[in-house]
Amino acid sequence: MSQSNVVFATSRNITREDLFARAVEISAAISGRAADLDREGRPPLAEIIKLKNAGLLNALHPPEIGGGGLDWVDGLRLVRILARGESSIGQLLGYHYVNSQYIYWALEEARARALANETVAKNLYWGAAVNPRDPGLVLTRRGNGYVLNGRKSFSTAAHVSDYINANASLNDKVVGFAVPTSRPGYFANDDWDNFGQRLSDSGSVEFRDFAVYEEDFVGAPAAPDAAPAVLSTFNTPLIQLVFVNFYLGTAEGALAAAVDYVRTTTRPWVTSGVQRAAEDPYILQRVGEFTASLKASAALADSAAAVVQAGLAKGHHVTARERGEAAAEAYAAKINATNVSLDITSGIFELTGARSTAERYRFDRFWRNVRTHTLHDPVFYKAKEVGEFVLNDKIPEVSLYS
Amino acid sequence: MSQSNVVFATSRNITREDLFARAVEISAAISGRAADLDREGRPPLAEIIKLKNAGLLNALHPPEIGGGGLDWVDGLRLVRILARGESSIGQLLGYHYVNSQYIYWALEEARARALANETVAKNLYWGAAVNPRDPGLVLTRRGNGYVLNGRKSFSTAAHVSDYINANASLNDKVVGFAVPTSRPGYFANDDWDNFGQRLSDSGSVEFRDFAVYEEDFVGAPAAPDAAPAVLSTFNTPLIQLVFVNFYLGTAEGALAAAVDYVRTTTRPWVTSGVQRAAEDPYILQRVGEFTASLKASAALADSAAAVVQAGLAKGHHVTARERGEAAAEAYAAKINATNVSLDITSGIFELTGARSTAERYRFDRFWRNVRTHTLHDPVFYKAKEVGEFVLNDKIPEVSLYS
Amino acid sequence: MSQSNVVFATSRNITREDLFARAVEISAAISGRAADLDREGRPPLAEIIKLKNAGLLNALHPPEIGGGGLDWVDGLRLVRILARGESSIGQLLGYHYVNSQYIYWALEEARARALANETVAKNLYWGAAVNPRDPGLVLTRRGNGYVLNGRKSFSTAAHVSDYINANASLNDKVVGFAVPTSRPGYFANDDWDNFGQRLSDSGSVEFRDFAVYEEDFVGAPAAPDAAPAVLSTFNTPLIQLVFVNFYLGTAEGALAAAVDYVRTTTRPWVTSGVQRAAEDPYILQRVGEFTASLKASAALADSAAAVVQAGLAKGHHVTARERGEAAAEAYAAKINATNVSLDITSGIFELTGARSTAERYRFDRFWRNVRTHTLHDPVFYKAKEVGEFVLNDKIPEVSLYS
Amino acid sequence: MSQSNVVFATSRNITREDLFARAVEISAAISGRAADLDREGRPPLAEIIKLKNAGLLNALHPPEIGGGGLDWVDGLRLVRILARGESSIGQLLGYHYVNSQYIYWALEEARARALANETVAKNLYWGAAVNPRDPGLVLTRRGNGYVLNGRKSFSTAAHVSDYINANASLNDKVVGFAVPTSRPGYFANDDWDNFGQRLSDSGSVEFRDFAVYEEDFVGAPAAPDAAPAVLSTFNTPLIQLVFVNFYLGTAEGALAAAVDYVRTTTRPWVTSGVQRAAEDPYILQRVGEFTASLKASAALADSAAAVVQAGLAKGHHVTARERGEAAAEAYAAKINATNVSLDITSGIFELTGARSTAERYRFDRFWRNVRTHTLHDPVFYKAKEVGEFVLNDKIPEVSLYS
Repeated sequence: MSQSNVVFATSRNITREDLFARAVEISAAISGRAADLDREGRPPLAEIIKLKNAGLLNALHPPEIGGGGLDWVDGLRLVRILARGESSIGQLLGYHYVNSQYIYWALEEARARALANETVAKNLYWGAAVNPRDPGLVLTRRGNGYVLNGRKSFSTAAHVSDYINANASLNDKVVGFAVPTSRPGYFANDDWDNFGQRLSDSGSVEFRDFAVYEEDFVGAPAAPDAAPAVLSTFNTPLIQLVFVNFYLGTAEGALAAAVDYVRTTTRPWVTSGVQRAAEDPYILQRVGEFTASLKASAALADSAAAVVQAGLAKGHHVTARERGEAAAEAYAAKINATNVSLDITSGIFELTGARSTAERYRFDRFWRNVRTHTLHDPVFYKAKEVGEFVLNDKIPEVSLYS
Repeated sequence: MSQSNVVFATSRNITREDLFARAVEISAAISGRAADLDREGRPPLAEIIKLKNAGLLNALHPPEIGGGGLDWVDGLRLVRILARGESSIGQLLGYHYVNSQYIYWALEEARARALANETVAKNLYWGAAVNPRDPGLVLTRRGNGYVLNGRKSFSTAAHVSDYINANASLNDKVVGFAVPTSRPGYFANDDWDNFGQRLSDSGSVEFRDFAVYEEDFVGAPAAPDAAPAVLSTFNTPLIQLVFVNFYLGTAEGALAAAVDYVRTTTRPWVTSGVQRAAEDPYILQRVGEFTASLKASAALADSAAAVVQAGLAKGHHVTARERGEAAAEAYAAKINATNVSLDITSGIFELTGARSTAERYRFDRFWRNVRTHTLHDPVFYKAKEVGEFVLNDKIPEVSLYS
Repeated sequence: MSQSNVVFATSRNITREDLFARAVEISAAISGRAADLDREGRPPLAEIIKLKNAGLLNALHPPEIGGGGLDWVDGLRLVRILARGESSIGQLLGYHYVNSQYIYWALEEARARALANETVAKNLYWGAAVNPRDPGLVLTRRGNGYVLNGRKSFSTAAHVSDYINANASLNDKVVGFAVPTSRPGYFANDDWDNFGQRLSDSGSVEFRDFAVYEEDFVGAPAAPDAAPAVLSTFNTPLIQLVFVNFYLGTAEGALAAAVDYVRTTTRPWVTSGVQRAAEDPYILQRVGEFTASLKASAALADSAAAVVQAGLAKGHHVTARERGEAAAEAYAAKINATNVSLDITSGIFELTGARSTAERYRFDRFWRNVRTHTLHDPVFYKAKEVGEFVLNDKIPEVSLYS
Repeated sequence: MSQSNVVFATSRNITREDLFARAVEISAAISGRAADLDREGRPPLAEIIKLKNAGLLNALHPPEIGGGGLDWVDGLRLVRILARGESSIGQLLGYHYVNSQYIYWALEEARARALANETVAKNLYWGAAVNPRDPGLVLTRRGNGYVLNGRKSFSTAAHVSDYINANASLNDKVVGFAVPTSRPGYFANDDWDNFGQRLSDSGSVEFRDFAVYEEDFVGAPAAPDAAPAVLSTFNTPLIQLVFVNFYLGTAEGALAAAVDYVRTTTRPWVTSGVQRAAEDPYILQRVGEFTASLKASAALADSAAAVVQAGLAKGHHVTARERGEAAAEAYAAKINATNVSLDITSGIFELTGARSTAERYRFDRFWRNVRTHTLHDPVFYKAKEVGEFVLNDKIPEVSLYS
C-alpha cells in the first residue's frame, strides 16, 4: 500500500480525547456506508488512510516519537469503537496494533526503536503472515541474504499492509522477521471470499524470491523448543482481546442499527395494542436484555485489558505465571464476547421484524461478521483452558492460539 | 408459469411410499445444487416442475381424482423433506398445499370439486395474494364482471403460481376469489431481494385491469365482521405448520451438511489430541445436543399436525373451540421450531470450523433462510397466544396470523 | 413390604382407559399432599399400595395372566402422569416396570412365566440392587445354596420392594439373580437423605447371610466378557425413558402448579398496567414458551418409546444394531428432557413471584427433584453418545448406563 | 439486638486492605459452617457481631467519625465477598449499608451527622420497614408525639437491626422516620420460613403503640406527590446493586464449592477415559464457561457501582437525569447478575455429580438463595426499563423498585 499521496496528519500533540473523538467520527461515517462496503467486499484502502490521517495507527506508540501514548485498555476501546461502524475496520486496526507493538516485545531494543520511529514517521500499517496451522513459507540462502518463497492461505490486511511480521522455515528451524511489503516478490491475491469480515483483506499472499536480510530477523534463529521470552508471547492474549473488542463493537453496532430501525421503521405488531414498535413490551424487554449482556461483556473486556496491560507494563520482568493469569482473563473475555455477540447479531431481527431482511440494509452482515471470525479458534477449547486454570491451576500453554 | 412443454407424470396409482421416495430423491438432488441456487436467487421454475412431475403437488388431493391421498401429517413431512434440500422449495411446496386445499374449506362443494379436478388434471401450482398488513388490491365493477387493480408487496411464488387465492376490497368490503395467473393484467415483478429464502419467489405482484368474474368469488362478499366458517380458518394453523416444517427441514439440512463436512473436511483442533475432527469430544457432544433438539421439535411438529388433521377431518362440524385447541398445538410447535432452527443453523459452524465460511459452501444460507422467514409474525406473540390458552383458557383469535 | 392387609383390586378386565383414569386420579390426589410428603421424605408405602390397588403395577403384564396388557409407550405415559403428582412416585412406578419386565428379557421362558404369574397374582413391587459403580455384594457357597453379604449404597425402592433383581460376585464372576426381600437377612436402611426425590426410598440396603438358591439365578453365571443377549439389554434404554418421563411429568406438575398459583395468588406487578397477573404479557409469553418446550420434549419421549417398543416386540430376534438405534433415540429424549425439565422447574418462579417461595408451598421441590436425578449419569456423555451415532455411525456401547 | 456484651473493635485507622482482609477471613470462616447455618435458618446474630467487630458495618462512614472511608464500589465488593461465604450475610451487610447511608441523603445535615456519629460509635446495624407493596403501618398522635401501630409482612434483619428506617401513614400522608428498635412496642416475629435466604431474618415485625417523636422524622411530612430530592432516591439503585453483588457472591461461592468438590470428591465418569474428574473435558469446559459469565457480570457490577458512586459524589447537585442514567446502569447489572447466578447455582451439579446432592452438603442452598431473592421484583420489568432508556431515552421512573 502506497502512502505517496497521503496528507499525513501531524500526530504530535494529539490528545487522548482527540483520538477517541476522531475514532467515533470515523466510525459513524463508515457506519453509514457499511452496507455498501460489505456488498463490495474490497480491501478498505481508503478507510485505512483515514485511520492513518487521524493518527489512530500510531495511537499506542510513545508520544516521544510522535505516537498517541495510549495504553492497551484505550487501544482496545478504539478497536471496539471502529468495529461499531464496520467490523473489519475494527479488526484491521486491532491487528495493526498487535503487529506493530510486537516489535517492542520481540526485538532487541535498538532495532525496535528504529522500526518504531520509521513506523510512526511513515504512518505504516503492520500486518503479519504467521498462521501456524498453514506452514509453507521457506527461506533459503541466496548470496549475502535470503529469499523467501511460498504461500500463506489467509493473510489479513494483505493489501493494506506496509510492513509485516512473518515466519518461515530455514533449515528446519522457524525464523521470524519483519519486512516491508514494498519489496519485489510480494503478491497479495484478491481471493478472500468468505461470508463475513469481507473487508478484512484476508486473502492469500505469495512470496516469490522475496529478499530477506539478516537485519530483518526478529531475534536470532532459535531452536523450535527454546522457551520464548515471556514478553514476546503477549501477542496472543492481546490479539484475542482484539477479537473480543471487535466482536463486541460489531454487536454494539448491530444493536444500535436495530434500535434506530425500530424507532423509525418497524411497524407495531397488529395485536400489540401499541402505537409504535418502540413501545412494544417484548421489544423493550429484549433491548434491555441485549444491553445488559453487552455491557457485562464490555466491562470484562476492559477489565481483562487492564490486567494484560499491567503484565505488559512489567516489561522483561513479567513472569510466565503473570502472563498466564492475564491470558486466562483475556480468554474468559473471549468466551463471553463470542456468546454475546452471536446472540445479539442474530437476535436483533426479533426487534426489527420481517422487512428488515431486505438486501439493501444488509443487517445480516453483523451476524456474518461475528460468525465468521469467532471460528478463528474453537471457543470450546478456550473454555477448556480457562477451566484448567480454575480447576487445576494450569496456566494456558503458550502458542499462537493461546 | 406455463406447463406447455412439461411431461406430466401420471399421478394415479402413486403410493405413499413412492411419494416419499421421490421427495427424498428430489431433495437430495437439489441439496447438491443448493449453494448455486441460493447464489442465483431466481424463481425455481425447474424445481417446481420436478415436484409436479413427481406428483408431489397433488399429494393431498383424493385418489379418486388422481391425487396422492395423503393427509396433512404426511404432507407436512414432505415439506420438511424438501426443505432439507433447499429451504424455499419446502416453503413453496407447503404454501401450495395450503392454498390449493383451501378450496375444499372455503368454497361451496361443487365449485371446489371443479377447481380440484382442474388442479389435479393440469397439475396447477397454487399461490396467494392475501397479506392483510399490506392492503392495496381494489376490485371495481366493469361490465358484467370486475377488474382488479393494485399491488401486493410480497407474494410468495409470484412467478411459479398457476392459480392464486386473492383478497381485494370491493365497496369497502373484503372479497376473496381464486383466479388463474394466466389472465392478462398479472405482473410478477422480480424484486424479491432479501437475504434469505432467496428462491421463494416472494416479490411484488401487480394487477392492472385484471379480469375477475362473479364465479371466481370464494363465497359471497361478506361484511368484514362476519364470523367466518370455522373450517375455512384452518389455513392459518396449517400455514404455520408449513413454516414449522420447512424451518425444521432447513435445520436438518444444515446439520446434515455440517456432519458431512466434519467427516470429510474439518481438521482436528491442534490441542484436541484426536486424529479426526469427528472424534472431538466437544463436536460430538454438540452434534448430540443438536440432534436431540431437532428430534424433539420434529416430534412435536408431527403430533401437532395430527391434532390439526383430526380437526380438519371433522369437516364443517368442527367447532371454533376444536380449531382453537388445534391452533394452540400448532403454535407451540412454531415457537419451538423457531428457537431450535435458529440455534442450529447458527451453531453448525462450531462443528465445521473457520474454513467452512468460504463463499463456495454458502453454509450461512441455512441461518439466512430461517432468520428471514421466522420473522413472518413475531414469535413473542405466538408465545403469548399459547400462554393465553394455557393460563386463561382463551383460544387464539382467528386471523391470517393466528 | 408386606401385602398382608392389602385388598387387591382385581386387575382382570381393567381397560386401558381405566388404567389411565386411575393414574390421573391418583396423581391428582397425591399432588394435593405432595408438599407434605416431600417435607416428611418417607418411603411412600401407602402410595405404592394405591398403585397396586389400581392395577397399575401390573399394567404391562399380558392380560392372560391378569395384567393390563399395555405396551411401553403407554407404560411410560403412566409414569409421566404419576410424576405430575409427585416425582418419586413416577420414578418408583417406572423402576418397577423395568425391573419386573426384565424377567421376560433375561430369564428362560418357563422361569419367567412362573415369576410373572406370581408377580401379577401377588401384585409384587420389583426393585433392584445392581449399581455397577458400587460393587460390594458377595455370594458365597453355603451348603446346597449360597449366602449373600454386603451393602449397596443406593437402592431405590429399598422398603417398598417385594422382589429385587440383584448382582453379586461369585468367584470373580458377576451373577444375576432375582429374590424376594422377605427372606431373612435383608435390611433396608433409612439413610436416603438427598435434597431431591425424597420419597424415592433410595437408601442403602444390606444383606447379611441372605439365602440365595441356584434357581434364583437369572441365567447361568457368565464370564464377564460374554456378550449379553440383546433383548436383556433393553433395560437400559427403558430405564432411561423412565427417567425422561418422570422428569417431564415433574416439569408438567411444576408448570401446572405455577399456572394455578398465577391464576389464584400472584399479584400483578405494580408497573404492569394489568389487573391480574394472568394478563401480564411477560408471564403469558413465558407460559407459552414453557408449554412449547414441554410439548416438544414429551412428543419425543413418546416417539422414542415407540421405537424402543418396536425393537422389543421383535423379541429374541432383535439385533444389536436395532437395539442401538432405539437406544440412541431414547438418549436423545434424555438430553432434551433433562434440559427442559431443569429450565422449567427453575423458571416457574418468574411466573409465581416472590411470595411463592414460602416453605408451605415447597415449590422448590420440582427443581430439587429434577436436579437430583438428572445427575444419575452425566448428560454430557449422553450427548456424546448420540453424537457418535450421528457422526460416526457408532451405536451406544451397552452398559447399565447406556 | 443488644450490643451490651460486645467488645467493639476500634474501627479508627482500619485501612482498606484490613477491611478487605477481614471480610475475606470472615467469609471463609462462615463458608465452612454455611450448610449448618442454612439448615438451622436462624437470625445470624453472632455473624453480625463479627461484622461489627471487624469494623465492616462502619466501612462506608467517613474516617473523621471513625468509619472506614470506603466508597460504594468497595462497599459493594465487600457485600460480594461476604456472600461467597453465605448469601444472607452478604445481603444483610448490603442492606445495612443502604439503610445507614440513607441518612446522609435524606436527612438535613445536622440530624444526619448526629445519627451517623451515634451509628459509628455504637456500631449500630440499620434495617428498614418500608415495603411499599405491603402498607399497614399507621402513625397516630398521642400527646406530644406519636404512636406507631401495624405490621410489616417482610422485614429483613428484623432481629439484628438496632435502628430502622420506616414508613407509615399519618393522616393520609406517608411519613418517613428513623427509630431505634430498642423502644418498647417493637416485636420481631420469627416467621421467615422461605426456601432461600434463610438467615436473612426477613420475618414480619409488629409495632404496638411504639413511640415515635417529631425529631425521628426524616424530613417534614410531605404530600405524596411531592418530588423527592434526587439524592434521597439513590437508595433504589444502590439496594439493587446490593442484590447484584450478593447474587454474584453467592454464585462465586457456589462455583468455588463445586470446584473444590470436583478436585477432592467427584469420581471420573466411567467412559471419560480420565483418571480424575478434574481432567474431564466437559467439566473443564463448563468451569471455563461459568467463570467467564461470572467475571463478566462482576465486571459490570463494579463498573455500574462506579457510575452510581460518581452520581452520589455530586451530592445535592445530582440531577434526575444523572440519577436515571446511573440507575439504568445498575439495572442492566441486575438483569445480567440474575441470569448468571441462576444458571451457575443450578449448573454446578453437572460438575459435582450425583452424590453431591446429599443433604449434608446442602449445595442446593446456592440456587435456593438466588432463586428466592431474584424474585424481589420481576427481572422482566427491569429489562423493560433498560429497554425504555435505550430505545426511548426514558430514565427509570423513581420508586422503591426502580
